[in-house]
Amino acid sequence: MGLDDAVIKPHEELAARLSERLDAVNTLIRERMASRHAPRIPEVTAHLIEAGGKRLRPMLTLATAEMCGYGGPYDVHLAATVEFIHTATLLHDDVVDESRQRRGRPTANLLWDNKSSVLVGDYLFARAFQLMVEPGSLRVLDILANAAATIAEGEVLQLSAARDLATGEDVYLQVVRGKTAALFSAATQVGGVLAGMDEDREKALYDYGDALGIAFQIADDLLDYQGDVHATGKNVGDDFRERKLTLPVIKAVAAANARERAFWQRTIEKGDQREGDLEEALAILARHDALARTHADADGWAGRAKAALARLPEHPVRRILTDLADYVVARVA
Amino acid sequence: MGLDDAVIKPHEELAARLSERLDAVNTLIRERMASRHAPRIPEVTAHLIEAGGKRLRPMLTLATAEMCGYGGPYDVHLAATVEFIHTATLLHDDVVDESRQRRGRPTANLLWDNKSSVLVGDYLFARAFQLMVEPGSLRVLDILANAAATIAEGEVLQLSAARDLATGEDVYLQVVRGKTAALFSAATQVGGVLAGMDEDREKALYDYGDALGIAFQIADDLLDYQGDVHATGKNVGDDFRERKLTLPVIKAVAAANARERAFWQRTIEKGDQREGDLEEALAILARHDALARTHADADGWAGRAKAALARLPEHPVRRILTDLADYVVARVA
Repeated sequence: MGLDDAVIKPHEELAARLSERLDAVNTLIRERMASRHAPRIPEVTAHLIEAGGKRLRPMLTLATAEMCGYGGPYDVHLAATVEFIHTATLLHDDVVDESRQRRGRPTANLLWDNKSSVLVGDYLFARAFQLMVEPGSLRVLDILANAAATIAEGEVLQLSAARDLATGEDVYLQVVRGKTAALFSAATQVGGVLAGMDEDREKALYDYGDALGIAFQIADDLLDYQGDVHATGKNVGDDFRERKLTLPVIKAVAAANARERAFWQRTIEKGDQREGDLEEALAILARHDALARTHADADGWAGRAKAALARLPEHPVRRILTDLADYVVARVA
Repeated sequence: MGLDDAVIKPHEELAARLSERLDAVNTLIRERMASRHAPRIPEVTAHLIEAGGKRLRPMLTLATAEMCGYGGPYDVHLAATVEFIHTATLLHDDVVDESRQRRGRPTANLLWDNKSSVLVGDYLFARAFQLMVEPGSLRVLDILANAAATIAEGEVLQLSAARDLATGEDVYLQVVRGKTAALFSAATQVGGVLAGMDEDREKALYDYGDALGIAFQIADDLLDYQGDVHATGKNVGDDFRERKLTLPVIKAVAAANARERAFWQRTIEKGDQREGDLEEALAILARHDALARTHADADGWAGRAKAALARLPEHPVRRILTDLADYVVARVA
């Protein structure tokens, strides 16, 4: 099932179901991104936050809180926390990657400057920490502070691993846990903590978010080699041109003959790319069945996500979250 | 009394008195700056943390905790937290300012790259938040999360205010509270919170740190126009060359005639600096008595710091902290 065939997509179903809570999250975000003294802050933040991200991460917190029976006000605070951490990370990522576009619009580092992106990102991190203190739960703080450390560690690891052909699937997984899965799993876990779930169920929520995040990121990496720009907004080959060693390439490198290895060394490690190289890369990936094998990995992680959900009580939201696990991989079917 | 005339300087007296706790802080810092997966992190961090800063901020936490009778282990965690936040801020500042030297050594952004400085800074922020969760005090978390937001807000404000002649003393003070005083006051306040001080005494500790930080920063800005490079490691005129609108210049601008105003517009706002401009700037500052008046402001803040201390119980550490308030200003006598 392709992206446009689904009658109603699970993230849209979540958004509809959670619309009141999501409105409250958006109100809180706008309130907290304000700054009495530095108008540059809401300008930069609004550019990114209003740009129409899907709010997937905050929805995970709202959804798991509801699924676990939470009825208090703080799911909104933690959902906003998660979105602030995500936004801060994007601001810093775009500086690090020297990106010029994000969600089809010029990046903040291009519209303002790197300085603003670094400092406004810091401000949003600090705002996130203020928000997460408000529920008064040390367990929540522990989870989110650990996630923040894992995210930053993954980003630093990626600096050295991204263009190094020695990077194997284990390091790739570590990087993916940092850049994507850590915030997904924190988002799902804190929803359950608010509702007072026991340790086993808390762990099931963590496992769901972790596996969902990994499936999501692997699918994203796949899209880069087989996406349809109209459906996904991604251009085929961006990662290749940016010399990012993602899972399909890692699988192809592991199985490479000498000639193929030299190709990857030239194009990824040395960055010497020529006309026709992307086609050659796609041909090598096809020769080793690398995209299909990567897809199978993504399916495996989606399966783990669903298995984790099965350890939680029956609830209408559980069905939507199950569909969501299928959906993040089905995007690239 | 000049810097070298003091027989024993108050920060050295503090370091001697607190040496065991400081050793524990240094051990904890080394432990927590490690990263299992990303060796770049301790490399960059060590470069800065081992570079021989005076550990003034962590000492403030250890000192106030002792002064208030705290006997537990967590003063060490919070002192390390404060140093991590400070180090993260320095890493990001050097990216924003495109600095090439810090404490007489090449900056991390020069030795590695901007990416490493941004991401390792993020890692240290996250580590700081992990550390501050450990004492299990929501009040401590509140104070430190607020300080982090004030710091980032001050930095963003500085971006727009630093080269704008319309910046007055009120905005300058706001920036200084962000870039310096917020961490000083959080450092002193949390020492008292650990010890269970009541609200009045907590406020006195905050007021001491706030006033000490402001005095410290004003003195630092003064040093830039009248420092002795051998004693202070600062070159006269760095701020002028970097077009930073600090308090002496703000005072001179407020009293400027048309010709002087044109001079500041050309040199600070437009950045068109020529041979002899620093000498001219110093002459204008002298004409308006701007350095002496700035010094009087610093003295005033040192006085407020001492008055705040007087609201706290008698203790040997209180005397050293009183001397410290005099000392941060006496550096530029």
